[in-house]
Amino acid sequence: MNKKKIINDPVYGFITIQSDLIYDLIAHPYFQRLRNIKQLGMTHLVYPGAVHTRFHHALGAMHLMNLAIETLRWKGHHITEEEEEGAKVAILLHDIGHGPYSHALENTIVNGISHENISMLMMNNLNKEFDHKLDLAIQIFQNTYSKPFLHQLVSGQLDTDRMDYLNRDSFFTGVSEGIIGFDRIIKMLNIYGGSLVVEEKGVYSVEKFLVARRIMYWQVYLHKTSVSAEHLLVNILRKAKSLSNEGHDLFATPSLHHFLTQTITKKDFEENPLHLHHFSNLDDHDIYSAVKVWVTEKDSVLSQLCNNLLTRSLYHVEISHVPFSNERVERLKQEASALLNIENQDIKYFVFTDTITNHAYKASDGSINILMKDGTINDITAAADNSILEGLSKTVKKHILCYTKELNNAK
Amino acid sequence: MNKKKIINDPVYGFITIQSDLIYDLIAHPYFQRLRNIKQLGMTHLVYPGAVHTRFHHALGAMHLMNLAIETLRWKGHHITEEEEEGAKVAILLHDIGHGPYSHALENTIVNGISHENISMLMMNNLNKEFDHKLDLAIQIFQNTYSKPFLHQLVSGQLDTDRMDYLNRDSFFTGVSEGIIGFDRIIKMLNIYGGSLVVEEKGVYSVEKFLVARRIMYWQVYLHKTSVSAEHLLVNILRKAKSLSNEGHDLFATPSLHHFLTQTITKKDFEENPLHLHHFSNLDDHDIYSAVKVWVTEKDSVLSQLCNNLLTRSLYHVEISHVPFSNERVERLKQEASALLNIENQDIKYFVFTDTITNHAYKASDGSINILMKDGTINDITAAADNSILEGLSKTVKKHILCYTKELNNAK
Amino acid sequence: MNKKKIINDPVYGFITIQSDLIYDLIAHPYFQRLRNIKQLGMTHLVYPGAVHTRFHHALGAMHLMNLAIETLRWKGHHITEEEEEGAKVAILLHDIGHGPYSHALENTIVNGISHENISMLMMNNLNKEFDHKLDLAIQIFQNTYSKPFLHQLVSGQLDTDRMDYLNRDSFFTGVSEGIIGFDRIIKMLNIYGGSLVVEEKGVYSVEKFLVARRIMYWQVYLHKTSVSAEHLLVNILRKAKSLSNEGHDLFATPSLHHFLTQTITKKDFEENPLHLHHFSNLDDHDIYSAVKVWVTEKDSVLSQLCNNLLTRSLYHVEISHVPFSNERVERLKQEASALLNIENQDIKYFVFTDTITNHAYKASDGSINILMKDGTINDITAAADNSILEGLSKTVKKHILCYTKELNNAK
Amino acid sequence: MNKKKIINDPVYGFITIQSDLIYDLIAHPYFQRLRNIKQLGMTHLVYPGAVHTRFHHALGAMHLMNLAIETLRWKGHHITEEEEEGAKVAILLHDIGHGPYSHALENTIVNGISHENISMLMMNNLNKEFDHKLDLAIQIFQNTYSKPFLHQLVSGQLDTDRMDYLNRDSFFTGVSEGIIGFDRIIKMLNIYGGSLVVEEKGVYSVEKFLVARRIMYWQVYLHKTSVSAEHLLVNILRKAKSLSNEGHDLFATPSLHHFLTQTITKKDFEENPLHLHHFSNLDDHDIYSAVKVWVTEKDSVLSQLCNNLLTRSLYHVEISHVPFSNERVERLKQEASALLNIENQDIKYFVFTDTITNHAYKASDGSINILMKDGTINDITAAADNSILEGLSKTVKKHILCYTKELNNAK
Repeated sequence: MNKKKIINDPVYGFITIQSDLIYDLIAHPYFQRLRNIKQLGMTHLVYPGAVHTRFHHALGAMHLMNLAIETLRWKGHHITEEEEEGAKVAILLHDIGHGPYSHALENTIVNGISHENISMLMMNNLNKEFDHKLDLAIQIFQNTYSKPFLHQLVSGQLDTDRMDYLNRDSFFTGVSEGIIGFDRIIKMLNIYGGSLVVEEKGVYSVEKFLVARRIMYWQVYLHKTSVSAEHLLVNILRKAKSLSNEGHDLFATPSLHHFLTQTITKKDFEENPLHLHHFSNLDDHDIYSAVKVWVTEKDSVLSQLCNNLLTRSLYHVEISHVPFSNERVERLKQEASALLNIENQDIKYFVFTDTITNHAYKASDGSINILMKDGTINDITAAADNSILEGLSKTVKKHILCYTKELNNAK
Repeated sequence: MNKKKIINDPVYGFITIQSDLIYDLIAHPYFQRLRNIKQLGMTHLVYPGAVHTRFHHALGAMHLMNLAIETLRWKGHHITEEEEEGAKVAILLHDIGHGPYSHALENTIVNGISHENISMLMMNNLNKEFDHKLDLAIQIFQNTYSKPFLHQLVSGQLDTDRMDYLNRDSFFTGVSEGIIGFDRIIKMLNIYGGSLVVEEKGVYSVEKFLVARRIMYWQVYLHKTSVSAEHLLVNILRKAKSLSNEGHDLFATPSLHHFLTQTITKKDFEENPLHLHHFSNLDDHDIYSAVKVWVTEKDSVLSQLCNNLLTRSLYHVEISHVPFSNERVERLKQEASALLNIENQDIKYFVFTDTITNHAYKASDGSINILMKDGTINDITAAADNSILEGLSKTVKKHILCYTKELNNAK
Repeated sequence: MNKKKIINDPVYGFITIQSDLIYDLIAHPYFQRLRNIKQLGMTHLVYPGAVHTRFHHALGAMHLMNLAIETLRWKGHHITEEEEEGAKVAILLHDIGHGPYSHALENTIVNGISHENISMLMMNNLNKEFDHKLDLAIQIFQNTYSKPFLHQLVSGQLDTDRMDYLNRDSFFTGVSEGIIGFDRIIKMLNIYGGSLVVEEKGVYSVEKFLVARRIMYWQVYLHKTSVSAEHLLVNILRKAKSLSNEGHDLFATPSLHHFLTQTITKKDFEENPLHLHHFSNLDDHDIYSAVKVWVTEKDSVLSQLCNNLLTRSLYHVEISHVPFSNERVERLKQEASALLNIENQDIKYFVFTDTITNHAYKASDGSINILMKDGTINDITAAADNSILEGLSKTVKKHILCYTKELNNAK
Repeated sequence: MNKKKIINDPVYGFITIQSDLIYDLIAHPYFQRLRNIKQLGMTHLVYPGAVHTRFHHALGAMHLMNLAIETLRWKGHHITEEEEEGAKVAILLHDIGHGPYSHALENTIVNGISHENISMLMMNNLNKEFDHKLDLAIQIFQNTYSKPFLHQLVSGQLDTDRMDYLNRDSFFTGVSEGIIGFDRIIKMLNIYGGSLVVEEKGVYSVEKFLVARRIMYWQVYLHKTSVSAEHLLVNILRKAKSLSNEGHDLFATPSLHHFLTQTITKKDFEENPLHLHHFSNLDDHDIYSAVKVWVTEKDSVLSQLCNNLLTRSLYHVEISHVPFSNERVERLKQEASALLNIENQDIKYFVFTDTITNHAYKASDGSINILMKDGTINDITAAADNSILEGLSKTVKKHILCYTKELNNAK
């Protein structure tokens, strides 16, 4: 069977599958499951086009890895076919452990273990299944391989993961501000002392990449309405788990039921394969079909929260650069309690505060190094003239105050 | 509350909501439900980007209606604000009655009534709820209004529905062959004798539109793999209903359960609002979460079919311009029976034939009329010189033979 | 000096220069001269974006050659580095002999020799200059090399020349109807018996390519206004040459002067390098700067024609499927003569007829062959079902009648 | 005659001509002349697609003005039809006075008067010709009209001129980093106290706009090679003028000859219409056809400079944040003098220094004001959180040192 395939991609045109191993990994249920997990969770409530999946993102990132390796070879760097496949497998699987509505899920019903840990468990399983053909990929993924630039292409501040998600999320949301010159950046990549660098004339493209990323955070990923919807889902899942713990039998697919009714630690996950089995069954369908049924649950808090999500009656969100006063929050809680007739321990589902933060560039976190024309290496913040990089490397932190819309309407 | 909103759309940039009624209709659960129904069902198994929804398509078609009305006014035709809103509401709701995986569903568990009938029931409900503000929209939709061109913009051979779905499906699949010059076509629209016409210099754009539509049919909508996946889903749902009728209690959300266990006629639908209530709860999540659970059902036929869908182990499909011989089909059935150890009445789920047809242009079906420079009107087939329209107006019919992949592998 | 360069291209992103020879050929004055020759001559009078140059087109076609060769290698065909460079050089230089406003020029002041002949002369010169490094390229160009598919990629019915110009002309005119799925077509290319074939599942893309080409002909290349402007320029140049022959000393750059005042045959061109020297100096600037000055010439016919071009007061054009009657044409000529007070021999510059023809696909002219799934080869007209190819392979011929606008206004 | 026309534009799809006056202005020779003046001068030597014209840019800016006015009306602001036409005419004509290779020309042979002054002269002429129909447009252009936001849309830090040129220059160069969310910015425009403001949620788009502009400056407008080519052209024209003053009779079109041989002040321009007449004849053709002929001039400095331009043998450019030392420059001059055997007064054509500067945002220069959600107004630098605006509002100044390539090769 010919496993050299091409896959249509509206972002890049075509993505080529270049080895049998990659074909087989893509066909594996672990990977196919990503077809049913939206990359941006609830963001489609703001940007209706943003229904693209983690499946597509992983393929796209692999495509960029292919372009990056082509460029580096063109510049005379030797990269073996095994290394090429290893890097592609590493990027293909870098997000394999994500669950549906991942950030919401990790903080609620699957809370003993991170998606990074699950990715690792899954990769190890795949490595066994495929007779250790993933050894090199895992080394690259874990940055234990002797050529660090390969890891940097998988996970760094200018990696193929970030480049693809900015491209893809811009494309599907229609937020043109997120468009980056990924092809120019890739053409400017080079290797210096074993590490990834960008040639000096690519500085403006990198600067633009960082600005685009910053804009995508505030305009899309941390958009008020997305944040509000995600918090609502978090609260739904928390309340559902709490009810399950109290013995309520909520409608759920068997695999969702598994996580609703048990508290599972990282250790449990590692020792009992049943947990990973059920985890690998979960996708957006399990969560959302349950939410749709729970709207008729007799517990009024759960049914109210679910109803709010389904009718897009999300929390009202206020944003501030300084923390909200305790008085303000308390007053809102009391109003909520009175208005909605709910018990004390449930008020937290209707009024709460949180913070959101972003920094476009962290100098500490695997810097972006620029290869100057004179052959020296500079951090991007030093290489760009009269830099806006200073601004970009500051952390932006915002406080948010969320409360149920009825409270807002009652004002 | 300000209901003038703009919505991001990667296809057109921005879509503007231009009246309170339209805002409220979009916010209605009937319409929000379309967020969770993929426009192209299983097609994303071939084109991973094709996960866009009926929600987005309806908004897009409304946007094109806006452009068409702007153009017609610019050319001096009088269209009142009520007519404008009526036409927009009509196109917005034209597909409101679609269920999840609509074509599969209509032929299986919701088989007493078509989606067109359900659209009509829903529109009438909305009209009651909104104090008859949809009267004009319904007249336009049903082509009983005095200005037929408005209906033609909603439903004709060159309507805003078709223009949007070609644009949108091309965009999300990445099949650039489907790109049409919708803006040129719209700029060339005019009215003659109350009906929609295209000015002569738009002939090539219309020709291109028809060719693009034909290509999209064969390359996307009737792509072997999509067709195969849809047939598999049809068979899963048929088998599930048949098992339910025999008393098996299959996992399902309550609303899916409602349709699995009952046989509901069009009359039932019209008389008992409970049916429409449950129908309006259904979306992709209900179907797919059930299929994922049924893979562990004890009925081996159902579990096998579901497993095939989840692992993308679709039917092998042969396509032919002549019917397949009975001998061939019978022989395959016997092989399947032997190989899979299934009972006679279940062989139809593993080996079967069907036909697929398409015609890009039907002269009979609300022709596309061209306004010639000399002021006369011609059918497009007469207006285009040395026409390829002849070819486009022929029906293409293909026979397909589908059989389970194990049979193919066993060869 | 590092001659591996990348060039920005809005159509494909980046074009890579992959060998020193190619770099040097691009830097050669013969090739740099193409920067100043618009690909579509006067078409920018209709489509203001269409000011792209032959320089850019040649680079783009070379880029597609690169993609085609990559694909063929990926499918297991052996192509040496020399053959790769040869094919790239051949396509890069395929249009090197074009003059400014090429079709107009060839029929007027440089009329002893075709641009194809001049291309050949220039390639031979370059071959000498570059020590026979172009031997293989010339063989491929002339189809005397042992691998005919390489020539077919340079010049055939589905060559990289046509693919690039459709892409590029669509892009710069903004006529989206001309967009072709070039990447899909290229991915579907294969070799069979030494010749280029398209795999069966690419049939619709080829069909679409032919339709797009047909549309571009009628919508762009043979657009009434472009045709009218080109005829006007032809008449200007004819009249200028005729006046020069009569001894008028018209303003012109020395190289234009050379051609205005002499009659040079193909043989002259081949024997006396001075002619090619002057030809290789000519670009759009020479022609247009002269026309701008001639508007003040004392010869009223020349000044009138030039004024018409500069003020976009082009011929009125009528198009018909049957020839225009002699009576009609004669009557118009008499009216023109009376109205404009011109002498008999000059009326032809103000009233004339011509024909324009196009066929999208010629079965005879290096057919497009399809590699069917069963391994057989079919002509595209046989491979496509219920074909619109029949229509596409017919020649469309139209008669045009042009007359000076004053005549139209006088009506 | 129907003057409502649509014009194809690859950037925006279609541009609509919405009044007879606008149609007639576009048809006027002053405006048609812009067809032959490239927007970016010599930049196409770096970005081969950048051959778009000032004609197209002016139309594009008018299109954006149309969108901006539509948005403002949609938000309830009253704008009369006269004001709409006035604003459109003002933006259409804002650059009408540009000459070919404008910056080069203004510093050399047409150096008594700026293009802004010439624009004003031309507008006044047009106003006379069109019976004072441009009165309002001129008021808007000169910011003497009572609604300042109209002027700000023509000329401000967020005007339709800048928005179009960033869009258009990005599009034609293929530098995707310059893409701006112009449609989002326009949708966010509003009026406050008669002045243009941007609504708070548009802040990120404006930030992105400023970053894109900054990148376009360094990546395109001030690209080393463009700067080098422009300086070379400046020196060619200076030398040509100097030779003409000394009595050399250089080849030139009559209108170029007019400026080569005379020194014309602003006052001359205003008083003697002949100067404007000749100026309005000049376009790229005049300049470039002369340069091509001058390559054979007997003055070796002029011929050498022209040859350098035609063979793309541009100056070598060094860039520095600190001024180059006098010693360095002097030494280079001496080397040049020795190497090229040129006289003292001509060395400046082969070795020289200059500075290039850019600031993306000037707080002083018609600030960009943000309408906050609480109804207050903030300068953009205050409105954006943790701003990169600080960086953007600093002036970046770079020193450049240019010397003829032979000097570099001799090293």
